[in-house]
Amino acid sequence: MRQYETFELTMTGKALKQNYAAVDVTAVFCCDGQEKTVSGFYDGMDEDGNGIYKVRFLPEQEGHYTWQVTGEVSAKGEADCDRADSLLHGMVRATGTHFTLEDGSAFYPFGTTVYALANQSDELVGETIRTMKNSPFNKVRMCVFPKHYVYNHNEPSFYMFRKTDGTDALDTGFTENDGAQWDTSSPDIRFWQRFERICAELGEAGIQIDLILFHPYDRWGFSAMKTDACLTYLDYLVRRLSAFPYFWWSMANEYDLMAARTPKDWDTFGNFLKEHDPYGHLLSNHNCFRLFDFSRDYVTHACIQSSWTYRAAQYIAGYHKPVIYDEMRYEGNLEESWGSISGFEMVNRFWTVCAQGAYGTHGETFLPEDEIVWWARGGRLIGESPRRIAFLKDFIYSLPGALTPVAGMWNRMMEIRKKGQAAVDAALAAMPAEVRTFAGNILNMDETEQTLFLLNESVAAGKVGDVCQLYYYGRMCPGRVNIRVKKGSKYKVERIDAWEMTRETVFEEIMPSALPAGGFTAPGEDTAEQGNICVSMPSREGMAVLVSRI
Amino acid sequence: MRQYETFELTMTGKALKQNYAAVDVTAVFCCDGQEKTVSGFYDGMDEDGNGIYKVRFLPEQEGHYTWQVTGEVSAKGEADCDRADSLLHGMVRATGTHFTLEDGSAFYPFGTTVYALANQSDELVGETIRTMKNSPFNKVRMCVFPKHYVYNHNEPSFYMFRKTDGTDALDTGFTENDGAQWDTSSPDIRFWQRFERICAELGEAGIQIDLILFHPYDRWGFSAMKTDACLTYLDYLVRRLSAFPYFWWSMANEYDLMAARTPKDWDTFGNFLKEHDPYGHLLSNHNCFRLFDFSRDYVTHACIQSSWTYRAAQYIAGYHKPVIYDEMRYEGNLEESWGSISGFEMVNRFWTVCAQGAYGTHGETFLPEDEIVWWARGGRLIGESPRRIAFLKDFIYSLPGALTPVAGMWNRMMEIRKKGQAAVDAALAAMPAEVRTFAGNILNMDETEQTLFLLNESVAAGKVGDVCQLYYYGRMCPGRVNIRVKKGSKYKVERIDAWEMTRETVFEEIMPSALPAGGFTAPGEDTAEQGNICVSMPSREGMAVLVSRI
Repeated sequence: MRQYETFELTMTGKALKQNYAAVDVTAVFCCDGQEKTVSGFYDGMDEDGNGIYKVRFLPEQEGHYTWQVTGEVSAKGEADCDRADSLLHGMVRATGTHFTLEDGSAFYPFGTTVYALANQSDELVGETIRTMKNSPFNKVRMCVFPKHYVYNHNEPSFYMFRKTDGTDALDTGFTENDGAQWDTSSPDIRFWQRFERICAELGEAGIQIDLILFHPYDRWGFSAMKTDACLTYLDYLVRRLSAFPYFWWSMANEYDLMAARTPKDWDTFGNFLKEHDPYGHLLSNHNCFRLFDFSRDYVTHACIQSSWTYRAAQYIAGYHKPVIYDEMRYEGNLEESWGSISGFEMVNRFWTVCAQGAYGTHGETFLPEDEIVWWARGGRLIGESPRRIAFLKDFIYSLPGALTPVAGMWNRMMEIRKKGQAAVDAALAAMPAEVRTFAGNILNMDETEQTLFLLNESVAAGKVGDVCQLYYYGRMCPGRVNIRVKKGSKYKVERIDAWEMTRETVFEEIMPSALPAGGFTAPGEDTAEQGNICVSMPSREGMAVLVSRI
Repeated sequence: MRQYETFELTMTGKALKQNYAAVDVTAVFCCDGQEKTVSGFYDGMDEDGNGIYKVRFLPEQEGHYTWQVTGEVSAKGEADCDRADSLLHGMVRATGTHFTLEDGSAFYPFGTTVYALANQSDELVGETIRTMKNSPFNKVRMCVFPKHYVYNHNEPSFYMFRKTDGTDALDTGFTENDGAQWDTSSPDIRFWQRFERICAELGEAGIQIDLILFHPYDRWGFSAMKTDACLTYLDYLVRRLSAFPYFWWSMANEYDLMAARTPKDWDTFGNFLKEHDPYGHLLSNHNCFRLFDFSRDYVTHACIQSSWTYRAAQYIAGYHKPVIYDEMRYEGNLEESWGSISGFEMVNRFWTVCAQGAYGTHGETFLPEDEIVWWARGGRLIGESPRRIAFLKDFIYSLPGALTPVAGMWNRMMEIRKKGQAAVDAALAAMPAEVRTFAGNILNMDETEQTLFLLNESVAAGKVGDVCQLYYYGRMCPGRVNIRVKKGSKYKVERIDAWEMTRETVFEEIMPSALPAGGFTAPGEDTAEQGNICVSMPSREGMAVLVSRI
């Protein structure tokens, strides 16, 4: 037994042909007086016709463990759990508005998307995992269920369940929903065993699996399962998978496109997972249109589909949870607008979210000759963004800590507006007359005006405490920038080109000068302690400046 | 006298030293039984010390005219007015959602911005006009008053008025508002004579002058004039300038930043201009934040500052008037976000608005060594966008008529939403079950969701009747596109690269094939008569497709 490593007990017992998803097997693990109860699962038959029962457990602390298994099978035992070696860091947790590994080290997710990875051929899966190991990506969004969608029409290797009429969908040549229900209490063990092997290879390569539990792209009927059947499926999934540290639960992809699901269902699923998952894996839900309610207590982080990456700071402030733009369109050349952004724009969106202390997820959608598009089925990456995302990832990991948003002047004014008209009036009254009209326009915007106005801002900014500030200028092409810093210290200033992947020192040690005259100051901003650093810039898109206090 | 050519009568009379703005001079011009009354103006003294009085008149029809001048001076006369020669097209008028010249020919505005042009040195003005003559621009936004702003600090050659204390601001070395009021009833004739010479050179070169009557960037006090003083100024301006066919009235630049102005003032000014301008020059008002109310009856067209060019179709549908994005940020490398978009992005915004049948205005803001930035003071153009705008202008003029927006599926669904919940419910009930969830999300969006959603669309589309359709794909990089056309005709298909300035024929004559299966159809859309044309594309940004029925 080793800390952060999945521990598995295998027992034999009665062979079962149906209704084995919720088999009665419970294990209690005890260490240092603390008990943890986990459920076991049925894993098919061995060659002798015995039923195979398994219990999986993730020890999160070192020490001496004892365990006792009861129910359909019984067992007991004990073992010393060694301290994790340096390669094992445990599960990723949400800590404030960021992620950390169990051992306290930072985890900055740089994800990619291969929705139907687990339902591809062994050859394609192998190629995909090799590609991923040579990429910057440390997280992948992928589905349990097979996918039916444009560029996605292959049959899966295995179906997830037997049918309620007792037939095996694979054996009967089933290819689309025939009206019969899936028997979620009779999972197809072959599917799960293969699925786990794929996930293990990813997980052991350090890639977090943001596992999509439901999705709407379906011709087989999985998206229309009754709520009870969904819970049986989730129960079996948690029993099998939750002891693997590399899983995150993403309740759905585009939850709001699932016609069979009610808002209550998502609460039911979220609470079920929170209650039944012994380890508290990360848990969120992904939208097409309306963002999920990330303030729900079972939600650990915001999982956002949106192109409006400049809003990351607003979401961080609103949810007080980590924010991942898990879909911000894909680098590619499809006809569909979601699959035809340039490599530059993919990189631009990554920098915009990361500069604010949020995170992004990549996807690649080039018109295929063979129906194999990375974003759904994997294969090879041919886009221009991955190596720039690698550069960004190295850059973010090089910082002295996780970034938090620097609210721009506009955002700070909107904060006043949220407090109501009295606060707006007071702020305006306190302003110099010459800026009151200007500021009054901003403070009195209606909702659409505010949305349009804030989206049009171009500088994404974040800081690490008072140690460093990062400004990313996105689509702006400034020839110089002026940056406000605290007076009285010296600063190192670096200029970063997100596309050319260069990072150069502009000033090794610079003392800020006085603020330029006539600058606009937001209400509540104290400029007395501020100085200015002017940095010359190359007048092109995709540039950032990092200012670090010495 | 010649049709569309300014006709000027000069008379001498009593010399005036003050209060000559609203001098009592009225002229009645009569042709074919129709009378038009115009006011004259005082234009200083001649060498003999006589007052010079002028009446300007723009004959809009050919025929025999008689006139009679009464008031401070008297005159009468008659003349034959010849038909315009082919170079003179008369004033630009709003016709539906487009502009036409008086003679019926189309006018597509491709504007630029040189705010303080008339307040620069003769040398710089000359250089600017030479530049403009060699550019695609057929309209310029420029101010009457001098400008005080970042990169704009030069004194004007002349001030507009004498002061109320009787002093001449120019002679007394005045450089900023000293608390005294401007005497708008005593205009500085030197200013106006020079101003008219500059405007005439532009106008005679075929450049419309979108004349900004007020603006907030001011250290002299012009922006703070009392409402009555403003009306005196407008009265004099209309007497002097309205007989020149090339003027448009833009009540303000960033009207909402003018602290001294109330909403009622703009109505007062708009109605005053409508009543006093004998010719009905185009009239609008330009915002910083909140769009002006373009539904006002004195407003002839929408003058919009916004970066959100994809909304042009919404504005056209909302106002039923021509729409010009008169400020959509500037090509340049300033630190300010409004002055640092790339040349590509400037061109991209032009194509986006023009493809929808709206219009755009250019500006250029490169960091100067000498405080001379095109957008404010003129000089030379160094950006990459003007020659691409020339290509676009040639393209738009080559079409068989003015474009009107093709509402995208999303916009059509939003139209249903506007009709209320009953219409939404009825539309959803009429849809196939498999798209109802998807469509329901769109139809039930809140305002912010709708704003964000529509902004994220990428294809700007317009049509000329049922003769041709234009699709501009903006930042999308499609490798192929499918276009729906009416069945039963042959089509010519052209592919246009906005940046490389190429236009190539893909299909000389193509018969549309059947619609691809599974396409999403908006409520109310009839697909029975539609066929499909698939066009291969080069997988890069800035591409358009023109489909013309043969």
